[in-house]
Amino acid sequence: MNSDKDISRKDFVKTAAMTGLGLSMAPFSILKNRDKGKIRIGFIGVGGRGTSHVKGLAERADVTIPALCDIRKENAENAKRIVVSAGLEEPDLYTRGEKDYLRMLERDDLDGVIIAAPWLWHVPMAVATMKSGKYAAVEVPAATTLDGCWDLVEASESSGMPCMLMENSCYRPRVLAVLNMVRQGIFGELVHARCGYFHDLVSNDVLIDSKGNFGEGTGGESNWRTQHHINRNGDLYPTHGIGPVAHWLDINRGNRFETITSSATMARGLHEAIVERGGAGHPNASIDFQKGDVVTSTIKTANGQSIIVTHNTTLPRPKTMGYLCQGTKGIWQVLNDSFNEEESIPSIYIEDMSPNEHWEPFGPYLEKYESKLIKKHKKDAANAGHGGDDFYIRNAFVESVKRQVTPPIDVYDAAAWSAITPLSEESISKGGHPIEFPDFTDGKWMTNENIFRPEEGF
Amino acid sequence: MNSDKDISRKDFVKTAAMTGLGLSMAPFSILKNRDKGKIRIGFIGVGGRGTSHVKGLAERADVTIPALCDIRKENAENAKRIVVSAGLEEPDLYTRGEKDYLRMLERDDLDGVIIAAPWLWHVPMAVATMKSGKYAAVEVPAATTLDGCWDLVEASESSGMPCMLMENSCYRPRVLAVLNMVRQGIFGELVHARCGYFHDLVSNDVLIDSKGNFGEGTGGESNWRTQHHINRNGDLYPTHGIGPVAHWLDINRGNRFETITSSATMARGLHEAIVERGGAGHPNASIDFQKGDVVTSTIKTANGQSIIVTHNTTLPRPKTMGYLCQGTKGIWQVLNDSFNEEESIPSIYIEDMSPNEHWEPFGPYLEKYESKLIKKHKKDAANAGHGGDDFYIRNAFVESVKRQVTPPIDVYDAAAWSAITPLSEESISKGGHPIEFPDFTDGKWMTNENIFRPEEGF
Repeated sequence: MNSDKDISRKDFVKTAAMTGLGLSMAPFSILKNRDKGKIRIGFIGVGGRGTSHVKGLAERADVTIPALCDIRKENAENAKRIVVSAGLEEPDLYTRGEKDYLRMLERDDLDGVIIAAPWLWHVPMAVATMKSGKYAAVEVPAATTLDGCWDLVEASESSGMPCMLMENSCYRPRVLAVLNMVRQGIFGELVHARCGYFHDLVSNDVLIDSKGNFGEGTGGESNWRTQHHINRNGDLYPTHGIGPVAHWLDINRGNRFETITSSATMARGLHEAIVERGGAGHPNASIDFQKGDVVTSTIKTANGQSIIVTHNTTLPRPKTMGYLCQGTKGIWQVLNDSFNEEESIPSIYIEDMSPNEHWEPFGPYLEKYESKLIKKHKKDAANAGHGGDDFYIRNAFVESVKRQVTPPIDVYDAAAWSAITPLSEESISKGGHPIEFPDFTDGKWMTNENIFRPEEGF
Repeated sequence: MNSDKDISRKDFVKTAAMTGLGLSMAPFSILKNRDKGKIRIGFIGVGGRGTSHVKGLAERADVTIPALCDIRKENAENAKRIVVSAGLEEPDLYTRGEKDYLRMLERDDLDGVIIAAPWLWHVPMAVATMKSGKYAAVEVPAATTLDGCWDLVEASESSGMPCMLMENSCYRPRVLAVLNMVRQGIFGELVHARCGYFHDLVSNDVLIDSKGNFGEGTGGESNWRTQHHINRNGDLYPTHGIGPVAHWLDINRGNRFETITSSATMARGLHEAIVERGGAGHPNASIDFQKGDVVTSTIKTANGQSIIVTHNTTLPRPKTMGYLCQGTKGIWQVLNDSFNEEESIPSIYIEDMSPNEHWEPFGPYLEKYESKLIKKHKKDAANAGHGGDDFYIRNAFVESVKRQVTPPIDVYDAAAWSAITPLSEESISKGGHPIEFPDFTDGKWMTNENIFRPEEGF
């Protein structure tokens, strides 16, 4: 933890308390000039991910989309067509370079902004959004450095505006059913969890194209994402895994991440794929990728649990988030899931419910403990991305803005979950040394109540 | 690593070299006075585990059992009946207290000794066995301290007698098939592995009886094993998991364990079970168990791989060793296995062989890559313990003694695998600090060839 930052953080908190700016005290801005009660959402970044959010929101009756920003004019034009086709008013476009989002944020007719730009832009864009008095929704990860995590927290506390992390995996039907079971005590006291991002981003051409190229001009995320594998060695993408786990374990609300130790294997996957696709003489074949193929982190919590988090994206394998939830009364785990098979694979064991020492398929449990939220919106979510998860995360942001309440995944979650990246890098660089998590809540984790309550609305 | 020990170790190596006692140079003792070519095996410890080995060896045509030792006379008498019933000559019994094994080792008509006593006795018994000029076979774990690991190595090198670790899990048909696949390059270069001992020893009354009692007089392993959970916090039982993984990764033969970081959760399982069975007023309910319910260790290897090892024995869950083997070309994992179901669960993915990003059941692979050893002895192993694994581990010891060769799991394996226990304790006591593994081979890991070759015999 950066001690300079720590000191400035303390100064800030003192100042904030004196001026009455603490988040819990700050009244949210009053919505005004709404078009028939609709909320008004702007977008920064309408590439692949941002566009899917535009589509999703354009279908809603309670949202208008007055403004779109992207450095690529064709992206903005394409998103505009989607908005207009949905019968909404034509949005204004902001395409005058990489800082044009600041011009968009000068508008006073936006209630919230969804940010889906390359990772390194998330913090400055979210900070500027909050400082302009708008709800910020930021794609994952929220930040890639500890300073960035602190910047988000400080901007939210000083502006009184929330910053929601758009972590769609928190709304997977299975993890919500498990959350219900956890909160009903079915697993007893939780002791151990596992999660991660096990997704082959090489085979599916996310990190390199079919000829072994990446970077400027290759299109898609390989434009910028692959560079992180060259310069950094840590868990680059922790939030899909840790989000649901943090909810099961009440992180930031009665519990917190205390320490992390991380380990990285050698790096083989990207290099071998480049050679296979472009030959040993390909310019990219000489790159020394820093990012190990498998990064494993162990997080200890204040309440005594351990969480194993994995980043495994450059070797051939089927996709999973590798969730495991173990308590004093039972265990659920799925390491070989797919959207279609998961429910039939033996994956849950609950003492006194399951046959003795025998895994059961999760299907019947999913049915019994299914979230009310899922039941209510199954039809709405049917065509949303990522098996429907995207509907729920957008819905949570929209409903939070409509009610002017803190979103169910807030800036402290965004900071704590995203901090896994820089902390894992530090641990790996020190040979697996344990590194302490900053307490972004400044002690409020001890008394904060859970705000992620899908059973009570969204 | 104990630096005093390190120094004495170096002195020893020097002395050994000067006197020509290095293991690689030492001629094995010549068998003499054999009963029709049979080898002669004695036993130290014939409780539950030792007795199953007596049964297994008594059935073989190439073994006699001249001597049995146990502190409990009834155990020795029972084992004697088994030997006699099998048509072998009546063995002599050694039951005069806990040091009577030394009297047994004075005999000159034993070729090897199988040791299956409480953990703390493994090292002194194995050392005395080797020093008496006999092959030692020791149950798992071989040692519980680093000093113990060194003692075994030094006794083997100075006596010229081997010490085999009786790790039966190395002979599970599935891990042998995976070993074949690894050695044939099907997984590409190995990058990551997982394993552990996930076995609820509370529900099955191994650690406490039905009334919440353990210790002297409760019978079975709770007599002595539960005490380790009171005084120690680490991975108490690593070898079932790490054995097969060590073979996949060529540990001690071209690769070695370099560092370990370990983490323990809170301890709940034993306490809660005691309260449930004996009430909150039960004397054992006030015990402060040091051993966390879930201990997770991350081992880094010299070749750049990581291995996640878990000890998870005091919470309700089905049993597994949790094997995972991942390379640059594919992955196999089974976390929800059982002897009957494992082959039908989606658990393997090999690039260019499996359907794109889709797990396959392991059954067809098991058939295709089945070990010749398993094919040959399927009938012999059918009634042996632990799904047949016990036949193969005993067979490996017997065949090694018959041929007077180093057993396929040798003293360096016994030391490196067992060292996980004390090293994990040290890491946990230091908040997850990385701890270095001693190099028990004194550098020979760089040139040693693989000796675990089930395809070539045993």
